[in-house]
Amino acid sequence: MSVLEKINYANDIKNIEKNELPVLADEIRGFIIDKVSRTGGHLASNLGVVEITMALHLCMEFPKDKIIWDVGHQSYTHKILTGRKEGFDNLRQYGGMSGFPKRNESDSDAFNTGHSSTSISAALGFAKARDLTGSDARVAAVIGDGSLTGGMAYEALNFIARAKTGCLIVLNDNEMSIDKNVGGMSRYLTNIRVGHTYNDLKSSVENKLLNIPDIGYKLAKKIKRSKDSIKNIFVPSTFFDDMGITYLGPVDGHNIFEMAEVFEKAFRLNRPIVVHVKTKKGKGYKYAEKYPEFFHGVEPFDIVTGKPVVKKTSLTYTDVFARKLVEIGEKNDKVVAITAAMAHGTGISHFQKKFPERTFDVGIAEQNAVTFAAGLAAAGMIPVVAIYSSFLQRAYDQILHDVCLQGLHVVFAVDRSGLVGPDGATHHGIYDTSFLSEMPGMTVIAPKNAEELKSAMEYAIKYNGPVAVKYPKGTAFRELSEFNSEFVHGKSEKIFEGNRVALIGCGSMVKGALEVYKKLNNDGISAGLYNARFLNPIDYEMIDEINEKYEMIAVLEENVTEGSYGEHVAEYLMEKGKEIKFEHFCIHSGIVEHGKIPELKKELGIDSDSIYKEIKDKIDIGDSTKK
Amino acid sequence: MSVLEKINYANDIKNIEKNELPVLADEIRGFIIDKVSRTGGHLASNLGVVEITMALHLCMEFPKDKIIWDVGHQSYTHKILTGRKEGFDNLRQYGGMSGFPKRNESDSDAFNTGHSSTSISAALGFAKARDLTGSDARVAAVIGDGSLTGGMAYEALNFIARAKTGCLIVLNDNEMSIDKNVGGMSRYLTNIRVGHTYNDLKSSVENKLLNIPDIGYKLAKKIKRSKDSIKNIFVPSTFFDDMGITYLGPVDGHNIFEMAEVFEKAFRLNRPIVVHVKTKKGKGYKYAEKYPEFFHGVEPFDIVTGKPVVKKTSLTYTDVFARKLVEIGEKNDKVVAITAAMAHGTGISHFQKKFPERTFDVGIAEQNAVTFAAGLAAAGMIPVVAIYSSFLQRAYDQILHDVCLQGLHVVFAVDRSGLVGPDGATHHGIYDTSFLSEMPGMTVIAPKNAEELKSAMEYAIKYNGPVAVKYPKGTAFRELSEFNSEFVHGKSEKIFEGNRVALIGCGSMVKGALEVYKKLNNDGISAGLYNARFLNPIDYEMIDEINEKYEMIAVLEENVTEGSYGEHVAEYLMEKGKEIKFEHFCIHSGIVEHGKIPELKKELGIDSDSIYKEIKDKIDIGDSTKK
Repeated sequence: MSVLEKINYANDIKNIEKNELPVLADEIRGFIIDKVSRTGGHLASNLGVVEITMALHLCMEFPKDKIIWDVGHQSYTHKILTGRKEGFDNLRQYGGMSGFPKRNESDSDAFNTGHSSTSISAALGFAKARDLTGSDARVAAVIGDGSLTGGMAYEALNFIARAKTGCLIVLNDNEMSIDKNVGGMSRYLTNIRVGHTYNDLKSSVENKLLNIPDIGYKLAKKIKRSKDSIKNIFVPSTFFDDMGITYLGPVDGHNIFEMAEVFEKAFRLNRPIVVHVKTKKGKGYKYAEKYPEFFHGVEPFDIVTGKPVVKKTSLTYTDVFARKLVEIGEKNDKVVAITAAMAHGTGISHFQKKFPERTFDVGIAEQNAVTFAAGLAAAGMIPVVAIYSSFLQRAYDQILHDVCLQGLHVVFAVDRSGLVGPDGATHHGIYDTSFLSEMPGMTVIAPKNAEELKSAMEYAIKYNGPVAVKYPKGTAFRELSEFNSEFVHGKSEKIFEGNRVALIGCGSMVKGALEVYKKLNNDGISAGLYNARFLNPIDYEMIDEINEKYEMIAVLEENVTEGSYGEHVAEYLMEKGKEIKFEHFCIHSGIVEHGKIPELKKELGIDSDSIYKEIKDKIDIGDSTKK
Repeated sequence: MSVLEKINYANDIKNIEKNELPVLADEIRGFIIDKVSRTGGHLASNLGVVEITMALHLCMEFPKDKIIWDVGHQSYTHKILTGRKEGFDNLRQYGGMSGFPKRNESDSDAFNTGHSSTSISAALGFAKARDLTGSDARVAAVIGDGSLTGGMAYEALNFIARAKTGCLIVLNDNEMSIDKNVGGMSRYLTNIRVGHTYNDLKSSVENKLLNIPDIGYKLAKKIKRSKDSIKNIFVPSTFFDDMGITYLGPVDGHNIFEMAEVFEKAFRLNRPIVVHVKTKKGKGYKYAEKYPEFFHGVEPFDIVTGKPVVKKTSLTYTDVFARKLVEIGEKNDKVVAITAAMAHGTGISHFQKKFPERTFDVGIAEQNAVTFAAGLAAAGMIPVVAIYSSFLQRAYDQILHDVCLQGLHVVFAVDRSGLVGPDGATHHGIYDTSFLSEMPGMTVIAPKNAEELKSAMEYAIKYNGPVAVKYPKGTAFRELSEFNSEFVHGKSEKIFEGNRVALIGCGSMVKGALEVYKKLNNDGISAGLYNARFLNPIDYEMIDEINEKYEMIAVLEENVTEGSYGEHVAEYLMEKGKEIKFEHFCIHSGIVEHGKIPELKKELGIDSDSIYKEIKDKIDIGDSTKK
């Protein structure tokens, strides 16, 4: 019987013999590698935190105690240790277990995460609620050094410093976030890393003092304050100490026992404490150790070779964007590129390779990315800010307040716009048309295919004002390349004319609209196909024209209803008193979980079959000539 | 001739005799106090930075060089020194000079600001653009200690540390932001303040080394690194130094000459430098020194007594909210309150006084405020987060990702929703219906008057899920108090029935709708009056009912068009194929500048006169019985 077989419910780890714990760690690693190789998922980060998770579970009681996982993609061991081993067979699949913590999946998941740098704020909420209600729950946040580059983590540290509450912050320092970590905090942690280690200090005076029950901490603090010379026998003063947060570390993040001891001590001190833990991303799987970026989020792969099972054969939108940007950069030296710790994910790495001095990776700091771009634009440069749609939400105010209110020429390359599949609710980019269109003067372009993405980028660079080009995850659509009409501001593109149903596709949904177009025309229902192209401003002339010619206008888009392109069209039609039939295919459901994109589209009724059926239903009923 | 009379264009300060500079400072103070006492405006912050601004202007050349003013309400001296004295006669008035930096007002204003913590990011953009284009512009950001509690300032510091570019950050430390400053960074700065001062070190080794041309800096750095014991003769190591940002200070922020010397040195070092300047908020006007919070932003006041010219006689919405929240807190000990450095502005101070342990001021850190609230809610508390509409934009992603995707019961008290008047474009709360309604499961309530705000708060506390109650700046509307139907989720309120024009008012616009209602009925046009109350979800039953009975539906709201309540109604009507006339009175213009709220409403065509006229136009034309 393997040790892992003994783990079936939360807290089972406490019944494992001490000498079996390292075995368990190995088995967990093997289990994760095996499962993720089949389903895909986050690998390197999960392999890095196996022992941290085990050590925390040794000191905590679930569901009473609370761990908040920053970003949350590193919660696999936590899922295993809280009775969810079986879930890994359908990890990230439609209807299956999420790759992130989910309150509705287990009562041992305290808080849902997905975006970076939220964990300390949330943990502090749990800690304060505990204090106010008189419970004795232990609260811990686990946050990577990369997430510390996000401003809200600092806001929370700044706040926690005077919060006078027991809250453990495990700083999981793997010297890297998704891409290589950058910035002053990184430098700062490096300085600490090369200094003393926690082990050196185990026999130190402070440590001995801290072990004295009740008065130990106060005594240590008193001596610390009394004389600077004595201070040096303690852990060297750090940024955290200076802010009023006790700092312990660094600790070996792959030594379960050492961590368990430190965590236990930290919980007992009952105050805000940062325990600085050093880990290796990808630990225990050679390919993941060597290529942690590639093994951050992976598709199914062969364990022996580390190669993906399905070879990538066609270009993604990201690839198309990345190549085009290099081309643009060669022609125009005012163009600079900005990424928020996603040089590889966004393809900015290509531009970076060619133009290192014109590329800026600001860390996981979307707010700074956007306002930095605004400054560059105000000074005459043409910044291209490439950020995933979902993460761009972090910079809502900066886009509105710093870019749009000044009408600055910043180009937003909004990658992963629309449904993203297995990462689920926290990562779908289904709000961008809404939040971008409501900002004054923002132009929103959604190209229909790879060719048009290139033209859109050319146009965005030439245009003078805030402009976003949004494109989805995955393989770039190649059809309809013969239709590539010149870009005119705010003008849509007529692809095929008809006379009964006008299908307007927005960006990624032009593909679906083409399929529906074919089906309808096959059925003898004359459909027209239009590419919205500009989602803001809207081509009202085209809408007028459609209104004249057709019985029905159907808008197809991969965005929530509220604030969408279709809604703006509807408002226009109502205000003008138009009486054309209006059908809007968009995301009516509030929260969209994980699954393959086609599965999700079907669930949401925005796959081409569903759209075709609904239009046929409506148009038949409404067709007086057929009755 | 006063010294101030010699200041008529940018850079004129350089022609002022050295001994006249302190006189000029006094005259500028007198000028600002006099002007602001007539027009209202930001006082305490402007009095604090007179000398900082003068010292910077002595070292800089405008418009070539760039100052980015964090928040920007402290830019009055800068405006005076760049030829805009006359503008102060109509400061913050409709059509007059803005109270914030504006690129379209002067080419000496490099970057528009209004919200907190943006300046370092923007300055870095200017600095990098300078480096890339080979200019020699000097770039400085002026940021208060309060703004340093905002996460994006830290993101920028973290980034600037490795940016290897010349950029001066003047840290204006008045030991207070708008309300009293909080948190670890504040504590940290205090520790520095009580330590060495820059003056103590003037004759130090480092200072002497730095004065050696070209090699001085490198030499100092080398020695600094070589031996820790020598390090102590330098400025003590700080958080900034640890991050890789040179730190100088503290410097007396009211000593023009000392600052000019340090700033000049900092510019010449040509690297990221923080100069820590200590100032007194309100300096030179006794009432402002004593009550800096009151004199942060003031209405016209009597200089001799410090009292407002117009006495406040009636309760504002903020007052009503503040009192109600205390009442709610007395009945329900799960209710906690959160403010982001605006305890006074939002009225949370009342709750704080009564329930200090249940009140949390997180600093200017809206992101942390919201996710902290999410943590509290996940742990069973009922957090009320009171933030101005415009500042809530900072937490867009946190509301969506941390609150809405988990369906957590967080109550948002959205103050200053709608037009705010003299603060202008950066402060209007005209996007909140849009950005809140597009989030899954978010309930948005806009009470029509004071009574309804109280009921709305009761309802929001009882409801289980994300809920926002939004209310405008200024005096609470008192009429229609006899109409206070029970709150039912998603249900609007019928006030008066008619049969031709149904006026639906959203929140603050019910008042205007009532005026239009009266005018129309006076003219014999039968109007009905409806209070939307729930802007999300929408009461479609009521819309259906209106559609049956009326010729026209007119929606009145103080929000941009895109993503508004009216747009959602239009989409519904289009999808259902309804043919009622639809008129939407909202903010169609992109950017709304400063002025009195009635002036702005008139300009935007959403004052009751304009609305009445337009409806009358449309309804007459459309009335077939009259033709």
